[in-house]
Amino acid sequence: MPALDYPPPLQRMIAQIRALPGLGPRSAERLVLWLMQDGGRIEPLVDGLRDLSARVHSCDQCGFFIQRGDECVLCHSSKRNHQLICVVEQAADVLRLERSGAFTGVYHVLGGKLSPLDNITPEDLRIQPLMERVEAQKVEEVILAVGSDVEGEATASYLSDLLRAQGVAASRLAQGMPAGGGLDHVDELTLYQALQGRRRM
Amino acid sequence: MPALDYPPPLQRMIAQIRALPGLGPRSAERLVLWLMQDGGRIEPLVDGLRDLSARVHSCDQCGFFIQRGDECVLCHSSKRNHQLICVVEQAADVLRLERSGAFTGVYHVLGGKLSPLDNITPEDLRIQPLMERVEAQKVEEVILAVGSDVEGEATASYLSDLLRAQGVAASRLAQGMPAGGGLDHVDELTLYQALQGRRRM
Repeated sequence: MPALDYPPPLQRMIAQIRALPGLGPRSAERLVLWLMQDGGRIEPLVDGLRDLSARVHSCDQCGFFIQRGDECVLCHSSKRNHQLICVVEQAADVLRLERSGAFTGVYHVLGGKLSPLDNITPEDLRIQPLMERVEAQKVEEVILAVGSDVEGEATASYLSDLLRAQGVAASRLAQGMPAGGGLDHVDELTLYQALQGRRRM
Repeated sequence: MPALDYPPPLQRMIAQIRALPGLGPRSAERLVLWLMQDGGRIEPLVDGLRDLSARVHSCDQCGFFIQRGDECVLCHSSKRNHQLICVVEQAADVLRLERSGAFTGVYHVLGGKLSPLDNITPEDLRIQPLMERVEAQKVEEVILAVGSDVEGEATASYLSDLLRAQGVAASRLAQGMPAGGGLDHVDELTLYQALQGRRRM
């Protein structure tokens, strides 16, 4: 008697769910079995996914999400400074910066960061469109709000070289102590950077 | 300027993913943003879900999954003892017991356990079909392999009363030390039950 297993379509679905970010083999199995209960749990999910796929896409200019048929609220806002572009890795970063309330320029989603180990080269990111925008919009400053890990630093350095060649100012987010944290909560590198970037009171 | 957020279909999808078991708000957001990358990640998932929904259903008798058109390999096996039924909470428990290789009878998936706090009463579980099966198959023993939490104990006790009234033997999985674990890895209740159930060597 061969070892019992789930029917093939169920096994395939577990494998597919496992391939999604943040889901391990056990949670994928639990999720699929949950979907199979009661009979009516798959259809709403399929409908939602179809709706998402049909109605949401990325703004050609900034890369943030827009609903099909709508204008990008960021790129078409007259209240925003279109001479100031903030470059971020992912669309989700746009929301994070917006929530801070500290930025009134426009955004440019790169779609990742340079990573030779993962075969991500400048051609894989939205760098060419950024340079075209910088020229077309007469941009004065580009804030490189990419991560401060090795790939983020490499991306920022690559972009600042390109921007300098076009005579555009590039800046980087300040590095230092996170809000509300004591010295015991930060690593040595953060402390080093906080000291280097100290400000007179 | 109203606070920026994702377009409504994207917000709805995040809410829908959050409602799945094992996914919090952050992982739901990350998953949906991942699906939105590259354009081609939603379709395979939709196809897989549709395939699952169309091709897999539960065996009317035991409750384990079968592919549409196939016979249940468990209920239709001539190598299995149909006078011995093992009652489990979920279909996934069938596989766990099968992998142990210690059981050659047939299964019966309850679909949950009694839980008055969650409004789960005997009518919500596959108890009536179990009693009909017990009578039709001339079952000699029913192993109640439900969990050993409060609801599992209540369910086992409820079922054993019903079975006793029909003159059928009911049994419960042994409780004790898990394989390969020392005394420092088990709680007091497990140790108490392991002592109570000790066996002569």
